[in-house]
Amino acid sequence: MTFKFNNVYVGNTATVVGPYEKEGPLGNKFDKTYDDLYNGEKSWEKAEAKLLSESVDILLKKSKKKKEEIELVVAGDLLNQITASCYGLEKYKIPFLGIFSACSTSTEGILLASTLIDDARVKNAIVSVSSHNMASEKQFRNPTEYGAPRPKTATFTTTGGASILLQSAKSKVRVESATIGKMCDMDQKDPNNMGAAMAVAAADTIYTHLKDTKRDANYYDLIITGDLGLYGKDILLEYMKSEYGIDISSNYNDSGVMIYNTERQTEVLAGGSGPACSPLVNYSYTIPLLEKGTIKRLLIVATGALFSPTMVYEKEPILSISHAVSLESVK
Amino acid sequence: MTFKFNNVYVGNTATVVGPYEKEGPLGNKFDKTYDDLYNGEKSWEKAEAKLLSESVDILLKKSKKKKEEIELVVAGDLLNQITASCYGLEKYKIPFLGIFSACSTSTEGILLASTLIDDARVKNAIVSVSSHNMASEKQFRNPTEYGAPRPKTATFTTTGGASILLQSAKSKVRVESATIGKMCDMDQKDPNNMGAAMAVAAADTIYTHLKDTKRDANYYDLIITGDLGLYGKDILLEYMKSEYGIDISSNYNDSGVMIYNTERQTEVLAGGSGPACSPLVNYSYTIPLLEKGTIKRLLIVATGALFSPTMVYEKEPILSISHAVSLESVK
Repeated sequence: MTFKFNNVYVGNTATVVGPYEKEGPLGNKFDKTYDDLYNGEKSWEKAEAKLLSESVDILLKKSKKKKEEIELVVAGDLLNQITASCYGLEKYKIPFLGIFSACSTSTEGILLASTLIDDARVKNAIVSVSSHNMASEKQFRNPTEYGAPRPKTATFTTTGGASILLQSAKSKVRVESATIGKMCDMDQKDPNNMGAAMAVAAADTIYTHLKDTKRDANYYDLIITGDLGLYGKDILLEYMKSEYGIDISSNYNDSGVMIYNTERQTEVLAGGSGPACSPLVNYSYTIPLLEKGTIKRLLIVATGALFSPTMVYEKEPILSISHAVSLESVK
Repeated sequence: MTFKFNNVYVGNTATVVGPYEKEGPLGNKFDKTYDDLYNGEKSWEKAEAKLLSESVDILLKKSKKKKEEIELVVAGDLLNQITASCYGLEKYKIPFLGIFSACSTSTEGILLASTLIDDARVKNAIVSVSSHNMASEKQFRNPTEYGAPRPKTATFTTTGGASILLQSAKSKVRVESATIGKMCDMDQKDPNNMGAAMAVAAADTIYTHLKDTKRDANYYDLIITGDLGLYGKDILLEYMKSEYGIDISSNYNDSGVMIYNTERQTEVLAGGSGPACSPLVNYSYTIPLLEKGTIKRLLIVATGALFSPTMVYEKEPILSISHAVSLESVK
């Protein structure tokens, strides 16, 4: 299911990250960085909520907007009960829609907010997401203090808050269309290999998007999935070719691979993940390329592993989903 | 923030419940009931996913629609990673938007789907929610096997799956408008008194809705909050009067109070709760009243306590939110 938009623009973006993202290749492009994973808070959860709310503060400042001018905020994160979004955003008193789509939350939020703006129901909406490496490890796997070893297919949850202002007022970048994904089940049960669970969801959504819009893959200057990581990226490339006969190798990259220097930062293993991963890369790097006109067309394909530790304990597979958003440089 | 709709209709609803709801005053109005909380599954989580997917199966059957005719499903529940929605709905392969708004998930879903239908982006959408008493107790408080005593202000999570088909094709009931709520913080930290945390969110949303639509409270034949329970209901009535000077005592009830016979079913304490509570009552009882023309105007004000055990352990308050949906009988 693909929606077209005519009047939705990117007002601004804001990103706040932790030490690992700061050390990565995009480190100097983020709006704010922390050397300490606690960033002055007393718990990982509160640290994550702060990353998210600081990204909103920076976004409002960059956009020269008061919070009263924002009619809606759509947000979600990986923490149970989307805690970082709720506790990070309550203070703004902006009408709030909570969403959950794991690491594809950002594109679900952008597509929902864009629809409401394009259909003239809202003029200014913020979409916010976050993730925190330690908060996620504690919740989903083991507290990192246990020192459990992890295989090389495991990804490293990014620490960051990322917000985007979408608006009806014209700017240099517009949201052109969006595709809602379907859940996929690859019978993948290894929480240390999310890329394998998500690659097929990304492929299904890219294929659906291209079919719905009657486009070739090379219509886009860049297709950025994420967070598949090194192994998931390879699976996607092969799967797109074998299943759909589509070769995206020339214009494709993955945000999980782009956010870290996987060769030097060996602790990140297969690369970055978490709801913040895709928007951190796209808001700090690819959307500015659209603003400058360096690239004209960008397809963001955020991917979510709907990983429930409870269901994996109960021998169920990890389901996945992916939502895509197409952005264009405005002449 | 209130959206108006002109072309959104209720196609059908479907409800599947457990033994406590079956014993309640609406017991004979549900589409399917189970005497066993496991309903043939091996875990509480799988039992909840089954309730949800069975409500979709029944909805499709009642509506004489194939799943391929449904363009979108919007769903959420209380389980971490909205597990019941994901595992209950994956098999349908329908484009999926996951949402989280605790026990106000149903009205968030209805307002999102209604917007997409009213703006002619979607013709047929299903909104599904679920909750399961044992799955919730296990996740949020203690496994019930521990036998921990609970105070009389505690509510009892309903066991049920509830789905609604929203469509552009005319029917006897239409979705007229919807109000997106803001998060509220009453500094309430007791997970056994959610009604107190949520009453103010309900009041804020009712007040905003009436102000945005320039209506009096008596415009509605019925205003149904939920799940506030016995104590939350009283708090709301008093708060509406003292804070806004609005008396809703003549046309107001709460789904948490309505779903059980709180005098006879003493185990439910202050009444029902959970994302299924509001839609179970409204889909089985108040929407049929609109269909028959017994009442003309209904305001459903589902209320969500954004309760995170982790944040309560960290001494943070329980935030709350409420989204409202206005439904009308069509002549």
